Amino acid sequence: MIMDEDFIKNPDVPGPTKEELRCLMICKSNVSDKDIVVDIGCGTGGLTVEFAKKAKYVYAIDINNKAIETTIQNIKKHDVNENVEVLEGDGLDVLDELTNFDLLIIGGSGGKLPLLIKKGYNKLNNNGRIIITAILLETRVEAVSTFKELSVIPDVVDISISKGQISERGTMMFAKNPVAIISAKKEN
Amino acid sequence: MIMDEDFIKNPDVPGPTKEELRCLMICKSNVSDKDIVVDIGCGTGGLTVEFAKKAKYVYAIDINNKAIETTIQNIKKHDVNENVEVLEGDGLDVLDELTNFDLLIIGGSGGKLPLLIKKGYNKLNNNGRIIITAILLETRVEAVSTFKELSVIPDVVDISISKGQISERGTMMFAKNPVAIISAKKEN
Amino acid sequence: MIMDEDFIKNPDVPGPTKEELRCLMICKSNVSDKDIVVDIGCGTGGLTVEFAKKAKYVYAIDINNKAIETTIQNIKKHDVNENVEVLEGDGLDVLDELTNFDLLIIGGSGGKLPLLIKKGYNKLNNNGRIIITAILLETRVEAVSTFKELSVIPDVVDISISKGQISERGTMMFAKNPVAIISAKKEN
Amino acid sequence: MIMDEDFIKNPDVPGPTKEELRCLMICKSNVSDKDIVVDIGCGTGGLTVEFAKKAKYVYAIDINNKAIETTIQNIKKHDVNENVEVLEGDGLDVLDELTNFDLLIIGGSGGKLPLLIKKGYNKLNNNGRIIITAILLETRVEAVSTFKELSVIPDVVDISISKGQISERGTMMFAKNPVAIISAKKEN
Ligand SMILES: Nc1ncnc2c1ncn2[C@@H]1O[C@H](CSCC[C@H](N)C(=O)O)[C@@H](O)[C@H]1O
Ligand SMILES: Nc1ncnc2c1ncn2[C@@H]1O[C@H](CSCC[C@H](N)C(=O)O)[C@@H](O)[C@H]1O
Ligand SMILES: Nc1ncnc2c1ncn2[C@@H]1O[C@H](CSCC[C@H](N)C(=O)O)[C@@H](O)[C@H]1O
Ligand SMILES: Nc1ncnc2c1ncn2[C@@H]1O[C@H](CSCC[C@H](N)C(=O)O)[C@@H](O)[C@H]1O
Repeated sequence: MIMDEDFIKNPDVPGPTKEELRCLMICKSNVSDKDIVVDIGCGTGGLTVEFAKKAKYVYAIDINNKAIETTIQNIKKHDVNENVEVLEGDGLDVLDELTNFDLLIIGGSGGKLPLLIKKGYNKLNNNGRIIITAILLETRVEAVSTFKELSVIPDVVDISISKGQISERGTMMFAKNPVAIISAKKEN
Repeated sequence: MIMDEDFIKNPDVPGPTKEELRCLMICKSNVSDKDIVVDIGCGTGGLTVEFAKKAKYVYAIDINNKAIETTIQNIKKHDVNENVEVLEGDGLDVLDELTNFDLLIIGGSGGKLPLLIKKGYNKLNNNGRIIITAILLETRVEAVSTFKELSVIPDVVDISISKGQISERGTMMFAKNPVAIISAKKEN
Repeated sequence: MIMDEDFIKNPDVPGPTKEELRCLMICKSNVSDKDIVVDIGCGTGGLTVEFAKKAKYVYAIDINNKAIETTIQNIKKHDVNENVEVLEGDGLDVLDELTNFDLLIIGGSGGKLPLLIKKGYNKLNNNGRIIITAILLETRVEAVSTFKELSVIPDVVDISISKGQISERGTMMFAKNPVAIISAKKEN
Repeated sequence: MIMDEDFIKNPDVPGPTKEELRCLMICKSNVSDKDIVVDIGCGTGGLTVEFAKKAKYVYAIDINNKAIETTIQNIKKHDVNENVEVLEGDGLDVLDELTNFDLLIIGGSGGKLPLLIKKGYNKLNNNGRIIITAILLETRVEAVSTFKELSVIPDVVDISISKGQISERGTMMFAKNPVAIISAKKEN
């Protein structure tokens, strides 16, 4: 895993997704070098870069122009230009242009999560996987209820991590904000 | 409970103990208006003030002169001057001068936790209680092992709290750092 | 605080609310001996008993007959019969019969949380408080969104507690399931 | 990642390490197909199997004969016999016989953690990594203080996970016990 501090940051763009979370998303996604990945809400490119190292190809999408710029910087820095394409736009529109993908990451939705899940899940290749990160309580619930509508029971994991800062006095634990991962596999 | 923002703060003094933790300490301590309380490491006076509202009398001790000043300010602000005495010094020394107390809070120890627990526990009135807050991993373990030496099995609770910040987008959860409360009752 | 094991349990009734949570609810509620409390979804009576010790009067309501029985047992055991009245029925109906209360606890809602919050909040005395426990993700979100409809910004706290079990080998931490407390004050 | 339920269990053996934790250990370890791994305290083989899929070779060690048996069963079930060797014995002794390894996992130590860390760290290849799981408070602290003795500042992460159980009523979160991962890299 790339360390958090090895990503270029941008004060106007959320991210990068913390190391431990990137790690869990790699696992939950079961990504392989045969997979084509779509990362909606690529932010700083934290997940884009990490998945690009494991997958065949990644489409990185963001509606925010500054996120697109930062993602491009991180793609260069981490040397994954060759198998990433960066697309500016609303994920809901960009999805229309994409076909044939195995893994859909939704890291940002701007209030359109149900539509993104439905459209994305439908377009996903068979045995494809969809994986959503949620920092808002509402996102967790929206994801679950949209999957219910699709008759899919997703896996829901809420992760709270604290990291030790070691000094002479001892080991002080600093908490990271909780994040949920909601994921599902498309069975055909 | 007093709200966190209603305490006077000081950049050089840790505290005040967060509302939820003050609350749990009040409960775990079973404090009543018959109790005389000793608060070693009073910091900003967060616990001192809260216990002064429930107990008969509180001795607030800190080795840091700025903590003493801030505690005095909060005592005045929250109108509990009448049943609090503030004592500057190392808790280990000040304990020598105190007799007859029912509740010992250790919120700071500066590496002297085992000695503070032993001396404090011995001087505690019968049916007295001792209650320690730990932010360091080492403090948790030191507290447990010192109680073991005293043939006491303490209650150990680790508390992780996150607080919602509500905006139009939704409810974002912000994590507070984990804190442990280690407490025990002196049975005679 | 009463210890968890000091409540009579019933395999068919959820509860009692864990000690630490009861404690935080007492604090968040700011209950005093002038307060009349309504506890909808009293379950085993865990909160009923605890609030009865601090408040003027508690109405304990549950739709489940076995919960009513268990609550009555715990009221007797903990000697608070004199200021508790137990009412069997759907909280939404029973609320119609109640006037003049300062504190509304909703510990169970059976899918009617928005209606319970709205009716309860409206009937609450001025400066009254409403306090909801949520174990489901959906309950957290429903509570927040209902308060938003009422133009109230609630306090949202998610609590994760783990308890130490001490043996010769060391201190093993056992996690309790996370619970959220959503609370608000009625300002007039 | 292999799902928790896909490992053979044994009532007398702790494990398998939960999916999310296995995942984080894989990440923290930076394991590659060039790495030789030593897994002290292999238990049911949860980590052994997972690392065998990524590494060149794994030595799985346990002092408990039943753990050895269960590990062998899981190695077979998950088809990694070819690059795993199972060794019964105290890790401290078995370490003496091993040379040339890149990754040391300590998942159980039976009170010998400081000695295991010291011996293991010394024998580790350059750029090797050591990674310890801790469920006891004492193990966390012992690991940190042993690394301090070795003038190494380890990475300390405490992980609390809760998993959603989805029903018609909603999504109930069930907490797993917190686990810490303490890891370090050997810089030469
Ligand atoms: N409908 C939508 N389409 C595309 N991007 C969107 C979107 N709604 C929100 N976003 C984007 O989602 C992003 C969420 S932050 C994502 C962080 C990222 N995973 C990282 O590791 O860096 C933001 O950059 C936001 O601009
Ligand atoms: N041996 C000792 N004797 C007295 N005070 C000590 C001490 N070691 C540390 N302290 C004090 O312990 C305090 C810990 S911070 C305590 C915060 C306090 N509970 C609040 O709510 O504000 C610090 O102010 C520190 O100066
Ligand atoms: N609409 C409704 N009206 C009244 N009670 C309800 C209800 N919906 C659910 N309940 C009750 O809410 C309870 C939730 S469990 C509450 C546990 C309780 N706080 C304790 O400490 O013991 C259940 O007993 C359930 O029967
Ligand atoms: N000194 C020692 N040497 C070897 N094994 C040890 C040991 N002390 C404890 N153990 C073993 O450490 C194991 C810890 S449980 C490990 C679980 C394992 N990671 C899994 O995924 O299944 C136990 O099986 C115990 O027998």
